[in-house]
Amino acid sequence: MTMEQSEKLNKIQVAALDEILGKKFPVLDDGFVRVVDYMGSDESIVQAARVSYGAGTKKVNEDRALIRYLLRNRHTTPFEMCEIKLHVRVPMDTWRQWIRHRTANVNEYSTRYSLAIDSSQKTKIDEWRMQSKDNKQGSEGFFPEEIGAKLSEREDELQNFAREIYQERLNLGVAREQARKDLPLSTYTEAYWKIDLHNLLNFLSLRMDHHAQFEIRSYANVIGNEIVARWTPIAWQAFKDYRINSIELSSLDIEVLKLVIKNEKENAITKAAELGMIKIIDGKILLNREGAEFENKISKLGINAPWN
Amino acid sequence: MTMEQSEKLNKIQVAALDEILGKKFPVLDDGFVRVVDYMGSDESIVQAARVSYGAGTKKVNEDRALIRYLLRNRHTTPFEMCEIKLHVRVPMDTWRQWIRHRTANVNEYSTRYSLAIDSSQKTKIDEWRMQSKDNKQGSEGFFPEEIGAKLSEREDELQNFAREIYQERLNLGVAREQARKDLPLSTYTEAYWKIDLHNLLNFLSLRMDHHAQFEIRSYANVIGNEIVARWTPIAWQAFKDYRINSIELSSLDIEVLKLVIKNEKENAITKAAELGMIKIIDGKILLNREGAEFENKISKLGINAPWN
Amino acid sequence: MTMEQSEKLNKIQVAALDEILGKKFPVLDDGFVRVVDYMGSDESIVQAARVSYGAGTKKVNEDRALIRYLLRNRHTTPFEMCEIKLHVRVPMDTWRQWIRHRTANVNEYSTRYSLAIDSSQKTKIDEWRMQSKDNKQGSEGFFPEEIGAKLSEREDELQNFAREIYQERLNLGVAREQARKDLPLSTYTEAYWKIDLHNLLNFLSLRMDHHAQFEIRSYANVIGNEIVARWTPIAWQAFKDYRINSIELSSLDIEVLKLVIKNEKENAITKAAELGMIKIIDGKILLNREGAEFENKISKLGINAPWN
Amino acid sequence: MTMEQSEKLNKIQVAALDEILGKKFPVLDDGFVRVVDYMGSDESIVQAARVSYGAGTKKVNEDRALIRYLLRNRHTTPFEMCEIKLHVRVPMDTWRQWIRHRTANVNEYSTRYSLAIDSSQKTKIDEWRMQSKDNKQGSEGFFPEEIGAKLSEREDELQNFAREIYQERLNLGVAREQARKDLPLSTYTEAYWKIDLHNLLNFLSLRMDHHAQFEIRSYANVIGNEIVARWTPIAWQAFKDYRINSIELSSLDIEVLKLVIKNEKENAITKAAELGMIKIIDGKILLNREGAEFENKISKLGINAPWN
Repeated sequence: MTMEQSEKLNKIQVAALDEILGKKFPVLDDGFVRVVDYMGSDESIVQAARVSYGAGTKKVNEDRALIRYLLRNRHTTPFEMCEIKLHVRVPMDTWRQWIRHRTANVNEYSTRYSLAIDSSQKTKIDEWRMQSKDNKQGSEGFFPEEIGAKLSEREDELQNFAREIYQERLNLGVAREQARKDLPLSTYTEAYWKIDLHNLLNFLSLRMDHHAQFEIRSYANVIGNEIVARWTPIAWQAFKDYRINSIELSSLDIEVLKLVIKNEKENAITKAAELGMIKIIDGKILLNREGAEFENKISKLGINAPWN
Repeated sequence: MTMEQSEKLNKIQVAALDEILGKKFPVLDDGFVRVVDYMGSDESIVQAARVSYGAGTKKVNEDRALIRYLLRNRHTTPFEMCEIKLHVRVPMDTWRQWIRHRTANVNEYSTRYSLAIDSSQKTKIDEWRMQSKDNKQGSEGFFPEEIGAKLSEREDELQNFAREIYQERLNLGVAREQARKDLPLSTYTEAYWKIDLHNLLNFLSLRMDHHAQFEIRSYANVIGNEIVARWTPIAWQAFKDYRINSIELSSLDIEVLKLVIKNEKENAITKAAELGMIKIIDGKILLNREGAEFENKISKLGINAPWN
Repeated sequence: MTMEQSEKLNKIQVAALDEILGKKFPVLDDGFVRVVDYMGSDESIVQAARVSYGAGTKKVNEDRALIRYLLRNRHTTPFEMCEIKLHVRVPMDTWRQWIRHRTANVNEYSTRYSLAIDSSQKTKIDEWRMQSKDNKQGSEGFFPEEIGAKLSEREDELQNFAREIYQERLNLGVAREQARKDLPLSTYTEAYWKIDLHNLLNFLSLRMDHHAQFEIRSYANVIGNEIVARWTPIAWQAFKDYRINSIELSSLDIEVLKLVIKNEKENAITKAAELGMIKIIDGKILLNREGAEFENKISKLGINAPWN
Repeated sequence: MTMEQSEKLNKIQVAALDEILGKKFPVLDDGFVRVVDYMGSDESIVQAARVSYGAGTKKVNEDRALIRYLLRNRHTTPFEMCEIKLHVRVPMDTWRQWIRHRTANVNEYSTRYSLAIDSSQKTKIDEWRMQSKDNKQGSEGFFPEEIGAKLSEREDELQNFAREIYQERLNLGVAREQARKDLPLSTYTEAYWKIDLHNLLNFLSLRMDHHAQFEIRSYANVIGNEIVARWTPIAWQAFKDYRINSIELSSLDIEVLKLVIKNEKENAITKAAELGMIKIIDGKILLNREGAEFENKISKLGINAPWN
């Protein structure tokens, strides 16, 4: 009559995840991610979702279909029934972005209480990135190695000097909480980070995105591909199919695309101009950001923009 | 050098909790609470707290002292590292209070999708409570059984009639989401409720309190005494010592109590009046709420109020 | 050099919202929504977003384009800078759904302290809905009025009886907190509900959806169309263009749609079957839920499903 | 009949806060806090609390008493009805602690998009603090100025060098998001920070505490004493009386204190030893942390520890 039949009475274990419990997945030059503990699995998502369906629906044993349906339709609460606890080592600069995700439990290594971790993220000579021209907050392309070498050398000097000053202060007896004040943002920190699967997928959809900074993206990719993929493989596949690799067409996109599909090129261009996706100046078409996004989306459907 | 040494690499299991996994603890006439899954233990609290202490402090192997220190000083984040998932069956009226605790994950039984659970909370003839005179939102004392019998009989009539109407609607083909609209608040619902230990202790400190309504208090007592006590026994004892059985003296209480302790009765009374704890009218002392609270607190220290 | 120039030093007021401050927008037979207070406006969203752009970008004075960009790309934090406080009157049954949105501040009318509001939601004779066949949790179509009349009459009997019992208990001196236990879910409650714009838009996108139950949808529509539309008109339009009226194509949808666009009907059908959107049994095509969703989405692009 | 009468229909303004809107309160050498916007006042707290009391209690016009009652008894939701938005400039090192308070809305200055703020927190020659001996995570006392001068000089060298490297990278065209990676933690950042009064008071109770690090404590003191004191003066006074200046006696404290008050010194000492507050070794009494806390608490009641 009620939901009780639909559940398991023993702790759910996921063998594929148990195998890598405690294993360090390296990230960047000296960072890592590892799973410390977890609760739940694909099965728990189903279990929670079935609460809404009652006993009568146990015959629906298509767990995979159910999980995919939930994810597709943003029924998010069943995914909250899974929880994972990671141990991460991250440069403070990256941690500054990471910590902005508020729906997580955190215990960070304290440099008030303990000595700062003696490691700063180092940039290899072929890893120096150029400022993107188009994207004010992005990077694009790498410096040639001879410039990179110079940059890495100077980085080294600065990191060494910063560590020297830190040590000097400690030797003199300066309080740790004050001595640390000029450590570089590249200094590694560590934390336990515990989060439910729904919020973790949100984190991943933002941080695996190509707009995310390379450093945090590297962590997100490891968490997604190495950890979530093992933990809740069905949810992970659904997430890729319905979130990561989906396209969202706005009502503006739809209006223009309809005309493109009907092969009304001119009308499509006029409509796009009217909706502010493009500008027509002296007969030339200039794409603004939204127009470029549109072009990019429809190219995934194998369609050319009407102005190409 | 870092925090890695301080942790376990296998999933923490708590034998005492494993023993009762899935067991239904009955509450009220037809409700229950049971543990479906959990993550962490007293050990995880310590593990998380040690992050802030680094490797150098592993010699501090007094876990109990550390947990008690954390709880006493409201260092709350290590308690968030423990998570528990309960399956509960609760009257909707009680659930209305329960759900106000926002920091939890919830999947509730859906009466849009399924038939409402065929059970309403029934009040036994000796369980009818009288309105408190002092406390506008409380109850006080029980009705004699002959009145209780009448009340229970009428309750039965109403619950039966409500169920009859619900059934009538369903028989006619009214949508479940609408048919349920006049079910009594006493109708049972069920849910998975997942929460971390820190927020669970907050829930318990509010809902085990004698000001909490009897019904939700009954659930809180079971969760605390039967479940948390087995899960994290050290944290539970600390919670009782430092939260449940503590007294908070306000700066006003302190001012008056200092005079009482110095045996300056008259000054204490004058001060209490000045601070608005009491009123003196025609030489008679009238306690207001804060004065009564003060009297109650110091009685736990074996001290009489100066006006007694 | 920093962000300070980009802000206003006086409280932002929105004239269009000030005009309706305190005005009750009626919902259902005896419910309402009204704005009690608010903070921020479209301007505050821009102000917060500009923090990320620094002083150099003040020339970018296209506020509208910026807000639309933020909403389109799920840069959600600037929308959190706007906050609104509503006073709502809602049947408890609807409130049970409403309160599941956790990121809000709530003060609800207490029936422990005060008498329950003497009003229950009544269903007019032409408002009784039939259970949907396709959608286990939905309704579909209305009963003819002669059946509706009977249902409304019985509803009345039940609501009156429930109120009679409530009154009986109070007259006898039963504690309010217990007397209320069998009130019907249709009983109205009231609350202050305070939420930021980002979370309000999430609420609206879920509750204005046609899958949401009629009752809560009615509230969501009023909040959206009457209140948010006046408060932050640019964000509201963007929300409609990029969230409410958008289509999300999954990677599966994309694969099939590409073939449809290339006019490879047979291949499209084979692909759809392969991906589990449809089943082909004895040469007949059966749509499952995902196939039907696909058909519905592409119809908005003016495209027929390959199997039609 | 309902709660509507108890509210105001126009936006609540607080004159004392309006006066300082936008005013920068300086903190540290180059930081500040200022109010950008707010919503609510002491009056809104009362308004929200009265929801629970209904119309019948309007005669209770003692707003001050009500606010004090709410705060004393941890009825926290009415305080959530007030919201404030600050603009703060803070060293990143301090911001790392600040941001751990999760229940706030944040828009931080982006050094991906813009140049890092050209200012690092500098320590004056008389501001260098020594590591505390007792408290592993605290500081205690200052260095003499001749040592301080040396430390400040070296700080300057490091900060200048870090800025030089940052500039070098930018000149070469390194992406801003990467160029910033070795900036010192002392670099200033700015943010809008929006939070409700309940959560702000939690922040203040933790960060105004003498255990909080000097830097963040400086901000907390300004926010409390300059801003909250003007905004919600009654709630602020209550907060000081019932939270900041209160003492919490644990059940252990109570047991020992009862004996002290009865003047049973020996029994009190025995009890304290039994409860683990003190150790008696060779007849000598050694205080552990809990014993020291006890001693400190009762000294505020004008009582000496039994072992003194």
